[in-house]
Amino acid sequence: MLSMAANNDELDRLLAAGLKASGQTVGTAESCTGGGIAFRLTAMPGCSAYFAGGIIAYANQVKEHVLDIQAEVLEQVGAVSEEVAANLAENARKLLGCDLAVSTTGIAGPGGGSEHKPIGLVFIGAACEGHTVVRRFVFDGDRAAVREQAVNEALLLLISLLK
Amino acid sequence: MLSMAANNDELDRLLAAGLKASGQTVGTAESCTGGGIAFRLTAMPGCSAYFAGGIIAYANQVKEHVLDIQAEVLEQVGAVSEEVAANLAENARKLLGCDLAVSTTGIAGPGGGSEHKPIGLVFIGAACEGHTVVRRFVFDGDRAAVREQAVNEALLLLISLLK
Repeated sequence: MLSMAANNDELDRLLAAGLKASGQTVGTAESCTGGGIAFRLTAMPGCSAYFAGGIIAYANQVKEHVLDIQAEVLEQVGAVSEEVAANLAENARKLLGCDLAVSTTGIAGPGGGSEHKPIGLVFIGAACEGHTVVRRFVFDGDRAAVREQAVNEALLLLISLLK
Repeated sequence: MLSMAANNDELDRLLAAGLKASGQTVGTAESCTGGGIAFRLTAMPGCSAYFAGGIIAYANQVKEHVLDIQAEVLEQVGAVSEEVAANLAENARKLLGCDLAVSTTGIAGPGGGSEHKPIGLVFIGAACEGHTVVRRFVFDGDRAAVREQAVNEALLLLISLLK
């Protein structure tokens, strides 16, 4: 766990340096990671230069009322879906007034899994001006491991989108 | 650090059990803790029964536009103040539609301290129906230590307010 924490620190520093160099600002819209992406982004001193803020849209009511996710979409494709990940990132970007926004929606477990949406399934979205990307993952491990991997993949996705 | 983590787990379990027993729902409005309170609240399986969501109001623009903190208040008393901690908790409670909301605003360091607002100063607020409380702390230690102590005190404040 020490080496994982050390690697996490390196990832955090890499992203912080990239954000400072690019001049872009960033925000978050998290469901299954529950604030973990924002907590890592704000671990670095000086993060106020690039971190605007975030929404933890855990309950569907918060997804709908704060981030304007349509109830019909939640009913038809479910909260854990490519479409909701995309909408969370796009709408958070507008609400928070930032250049880049990243989102997560998934099933961290131990409950909530199904045949088509197994435990460990996480959609990670990111939105910048005129462009949205969503990646689908199925992570191994327990709730903590799924959440940590999702946070790390979200940070890597942000790095890949830096100018 | 291992014993601290173990104690944190016990605190998380105590709060989760209290929230389940009371039937109250909870939300967050975090500045200096950057999502750390929400991440701890969502570490527990089954937290969707009581955790609604949260706002990470890091930039003043997000405090103003998402959580309706008045620009005049931010100018007159500053973001790190009893008044802003109270307003963050009260407004998050309304926005997220939850029974209890907890807030943080502080100076985690290493930069940003002053004579009247030293590094480690954190106001922690909590709001429930008809009642708001704010506590003032000056925590020792580095940025990570200040943030961890603030998260733990916020969780303890929530426990103290459970029905």
